[in-house]
Amino acid sequence: MKHIPFHGVIAYPVTPFTGKEKVDIALFKTMVERLVITGAHGIAPLGSTGVLPYLSDEEKEAVTEACIQQVGGRVPTLVGVSNLTTEKTIYHARFAERAGATAVMIIPMSYWKLTDDEIVAHYDAVAASISIPIMAYNNPATSGVDMSPALLKRLLKIPNVTMIKESTGDVQRMHTLRKELGEEVAFYNGANPLALAAFAAGANGWCTAAPNLIPALNIALYDAVRENDLEKAQQLFYEQFDLLKFIVAKGLPRAVKAGLTLLGEEGGHLRNPLKPLTDKEVIELETILSPLRERSIPAQQLISGC
Amino acid sequence: MKHIPFHGVIAYPVTPFTGKEKVDIALFKTMVERLVITGAHGIAPLGSTGVLPYLSDEEKEAVTEACIQQVGGRVPTLVGVSNLTTEKTIYHARFAERAGATAVMIIPMSYWKLTDDEIVAHYDAVAASISIPIMAYNNPATSGVDMSPALLKRLLKIPNVTMIKESTGDVQRMHTLRKELGEEVAFYNGANPLALAAFAAGANGWCTAAPNLIPALNIALYDAVRENDLEKAQQLFYEQFDLLKFIVAKGLPRAVKAGLTLLGEEGGHLRNPLKPLTDKEVIELETILSPLRERSIPAQQLISGC
Amino acid sequence: MKHIPFHGVIAYPVTPFTGKEKVDIALFKTMVERLVITGAHGIAPLGSTGVLPYLSDEEKEAVTEACIQQVGGRVPTLVGVSNLTTEKTIYHARFAERAGATAVMIIPMSYWKLTDDEIVAHYDAVAASISIPIMAYNNPATSGVDMSPALLKRLLKIPNVTMIKESTGDVQRMHTLRKELGEEVAFYNGANPLALAAFAAGANGWCTAAPNLIPALNIALYDAVRENDLEKAQQLFYEQFDLLKFIVAKGLPRAVKAGLTLLGEEGGHLRNPLKPLTDKEVIELETILSPLRERSIPAQQLISGC
Amino acid sequence: MKHIPFHGVIAYPVTPFTGKEKVDIALFKTMVERLVITGAHGIAPLGSTGVLPYLSDEEKEAVTEACIQQVGGRVPTLVGVSNLTTEKTIYHARFAERAGATAVMIIPMSYWKLTDDEIVAHYDAVAASISIPIMAYNNPATSGVDMSPALLKRLLKIPNVTMIKESTGDVQRMHTLRKELGEEVAFYNGANPLALAAFAAGANGWCTAAPNLIPALNIALYDAVRENDLEKAQQLFYEQFDLLKFIVAKGLPRAVKAGLTLLGEEGGHLRNPLKPLTDKEVIELETILSPLRERSIPAQQLISGC
Repeated sequence: MKHIPFHGVIAYPVTPFTGKEKVDIALFKTMVERLVITGAHGIAPLGSTGVLPYLSDEEKEAVTEACIQQVGGRVPTLVGVSNLTTEKTIYHARFAERAGATAVMIIPMSYWKLTDDEIVAHYDAVAASISIPIMAYNNPATSGVDMSPALLKRLLKIPNVTMIKESTGDVQRMHTLRKELGEEVAFYNGANPLALAAFAAGANGWCTAAPNLIPALNIALYDAVRENDLEKAQQLFYEQFDLLKFIVAKGLPRAVKAGLTLLGEEGGHLRNPLKPLTDKEVIELETILSPLRERSIPAQQLISGC
Repeated sequence: MKHIPFHGVIAYPVTPFTGKEKVDIALFKTMVERLVITGAHGIAPLGSTGVLPYLSDEEKEAVTEACIQQVGGRVPTLVGVSNLTTEKTIYHARFAERAGATAVMIIPMSYWKLTDDEIVAHYDAVAASISIPIMAYNNPATSGVDMSPALLKRLLKIPNVTMIKESTGDVQRMHTLRKELGEEVAFYNGANPLALAAFAAGANGWCTAAPNLIPALNIALYDAVRENDLEKAQQLFYEQFDLLKFIVAKGLPRAVKAGLTLLGEEGGHLRNPLKPLTDKEVIELETILSPLRERSIPAQQLISGC
Repeated sequence: MKHIPFHGVIAYPVTPFTGKEKVDIALFKTMVERLVITGAHGIAPLGSTGVLPYLSDEEKEAVTEACIQQVGGRVPTLVGVSNLTTEKTIYHARFAERAGATAVMIIPMSYWKLTDDEIVAHYDAVAASISIPIMAYNNPATSGVDMSPALLKRLLKIPNVTMIKESTGDVQRMHTLRKELGEEVAFYNGANPLALAAFAAGANGWCTAAPNLIPALNIALYDAVRENDLEKAQQLFYEQFDLLKFIVAKGLPRAVKAGLTLLGEEGGHLRNPLKPLTDKEVIELETILSPLRERSIPAQQLISGC
Repeated sequence: MKHIPFHGVIAYPVTPFTGKEKVDIALFKTMVERLVITGAHGIAPLGSTGVLPYLSDEEKEAVTEACIQQVGGRVPTLVGVSNLTTEKTIYHARFAERAGATAVMIIPMSYWKLTDDEIVAHYDAVAASISIPIMAYNNPATSGVDMSPALLKRLLKIPNVTMIKESTGDVQRMHTLRKELGEEVAFYNGANPLALAAFAAGANGWCTAAPNLIPALNIALYDAVRENDLEKAQQLFYEQFDLLKFIVAKGLPRAVKAGLTLLGEEGGHLRNPLKPLTDKEVIELETILSPLRERSIPAQQLISGC
């Protein structure tokens, strides 16, 4: 039987930088700790939120190790290891496995649009080189390739490809996935504004950077769904909808950093060419975030306990 | 307060033709009767399903009268009166009101893409000429104009524009509508494969041709939502999902006609250039419809009772 | 051999209305006369510019007769006869033939997206009912159906379907048409901002409303192409490019009407819901049109000579 | 005055690999030599064709040096130095300048969609760190960002940003560029199937991988345009159109490699996940390439002379 280690809210930490654009490992660990103690059901470093493609190999390795060490087995970890070449993807997947990752997430990054056969061969080669599970990630907006349900079906035949993350932002795609891949398929929603619809559609989990800012609301939504309470889920969803839309529209690393500052947390610096939100955008975010603030557990208070 | 006469499953009858491409009013009445007695919460003649744009003025009038007469006030009626010109839209809206329609549905048909101001003036003129409520219908795929939430907000300021039907097929649009127009806005889903997601998002109703084929399943889905039973709603939705996708993909009039024949009902003829489904498509439909057949109440049996 | 009666600049008159939204036949004839005497190589009433879909059957017939009568055989006429139903398309095609049209133009109007087989059957039925040539018109933005080169190839097998009008706005489509349909295919460009690229690609003609405003520039562009003078064609094209973009962006009937007024000509009224350009748009048009004014032959002067 | 070192056909060599996926510098030099002696007006290593994003820093440097050395100043060189981060882009731009590149090409690679201000800051920082000219490259399909004419106008204010490469594939964009940026703007076409339309629109040059396979035809097209002979240009374009479409559809590195093999040249290996064309695709390419073969000067013969 397929090994499916994730459910619920899978939180994506940002990768913070110092003023000199070096990765700030100490701050990163603080951020990971906040995500764990505020209730995330899984931690996923080196995703889009973690600016994976902007990091050197050494930086990726340092982030991987720091995350796994900080989480310390309290919840499962899902490490992003995607790379344009198969050789490099294998390299990072092996590193993550040795470092103790629960699973790895792989999107078929592509500069030159890959054929279905090229994608299958890519996953095949990586899967054969590790023994932990793989979450195959579909996000045409960033990868340039839209993996059809038929292709995902092929990928799921690889023994340790056990999970699908869907980020097209179209709930109909999720319906089709579930119908074509079978009810037992483990699929995860990666489009924040689709959180309610995806859970209604049967998603196992929600991959999201939102817990950096509003963890209590994110987890409450999942709990309402598990309690089969649609009305409550709907109400919780609309409470957080504007924030979900905002952080997606402005880019997760930029928006999360600004939000952390508004919450009185250290958000770190960005790496160029990414720049902080403009003053106007920060005000817009404040308007959205303020009413939700009580919903976000003060981190200092929490961390003081660890 | 706004007059909002619809909720639940609003069923769209097809407009059947004789072998000589004349509207078959007798058969149309039988179809309407089936929709009423199988539980539809509203009846909407002269929609896309009813091939409104393919009919002459006289035919539209005959269909309007036949529908209202057959329904006989058992459920509310929503008559499509859209037209390219404002003058003709007013003409048909007035006719529907005089004939006893509960409300009219209006999409801003456009050959030349209309500006927001042109659309507002169009609705304004029509609304001023009748006193029954108007459902403003957004479906860029057929009208050529995508009405933004901001524009819909302007339309809702017209006193008797009281309802919004959304058919972009994007649940995020519905989330935005509800956030921007306020919780009390009455919005209806017109995209069949979005039925579950739209109800989860808070839609008041579902405008659909599916009750021509599987009324019991359609209504059961709505009932599960009203009972706040997400799990049951999800299961019922996936049962009918393939059918919903099929009838949309093949065009509602063609698919409904073929489905009725498979169910042993009279489906009538189409008007050229629309042609029946191919044999291969009919077999595909049969594979989808057969397992759901027991879900569709045999009409003869029902009608014999009326 | 195929009968191909058109080349060069095929001019599209608007259909003007009186203040009471009645078709103004007298003014229409004046407009047609201007197009003929300013050098158009063909006249095409009842196109998109002529607001075909907004007219009643009687109005279409009056416009058809008025145009053919006014042109009086000086150049060929191409009458738009498209309709949603096959029966009505046949009706109008026959009328045009009897009235003396050189050819008819047909776009596969579709509310319900037509299959390739439905489209072929539609053209087949119309073509069999007349003996004059048909120009098949592809414009997915208005018809809702994008006819592939493969489908157009099928249509061209019908003896009196002899010409293709392409308005996707993508010059690559024209390249593909010419490669797949053969060098001898007669194709016409219907996208104004593509005028230069289409002629470079080998288009036989340019279907355009621009001669209502800048006939001399339009015809000079075609002449430069025929003289194989690319440099001159390029320079002439860029002179008129802003105007071509503007009239497309604002909608041809609205923009042409405003332009005529700026030129001191009678432009007539629009039929609701279409409204005149805003004051701001008129100023924008004036800025574009003024420097080209000397390029537009004063109509009074010309007409006085006829 | 702006320094604009390129015109005509700017040829893009592939970066070939050995069977063990190492960059094959010797073979690369042979390929560059072929491009020079068959008449290319410029050589552009490390473009999309040269699989820039799949290479390590060391590999990029080796390719840069090998190319500049092999070209030996016979024609100008345009080295691709794009990178996700500003720091790395500066690093490679400086390397290229020191190595003797004539100019560098920069696309705003983006994982997180960049704002206009972020893009301007990125180019500003890179431009300030070198003194050779920069070609700003717009290709939303690969970069994820579509630079508007207004943004390009801002970039052109940076003194050593002197050239624009446009690859949206839409000739209307080029018309707009030329109108908004002024007649003297140096813009280059990067969309192969648009070669004719772009030259007709006034493009200074054509950035293309096609000279790896059909240099004589590519250059003849440019010559015809310079001779103001549109008819000849059109005929030459249609001769090569199917090949241009094919190599774009299949991905330039894969298609060029297969084409070289068909021409009896050494094409090298690809780096995974990119795979060779399928047998069926090779046959399709052969059908297209065979009739053009005499148009491609046999390289052995040419190289023997150097």
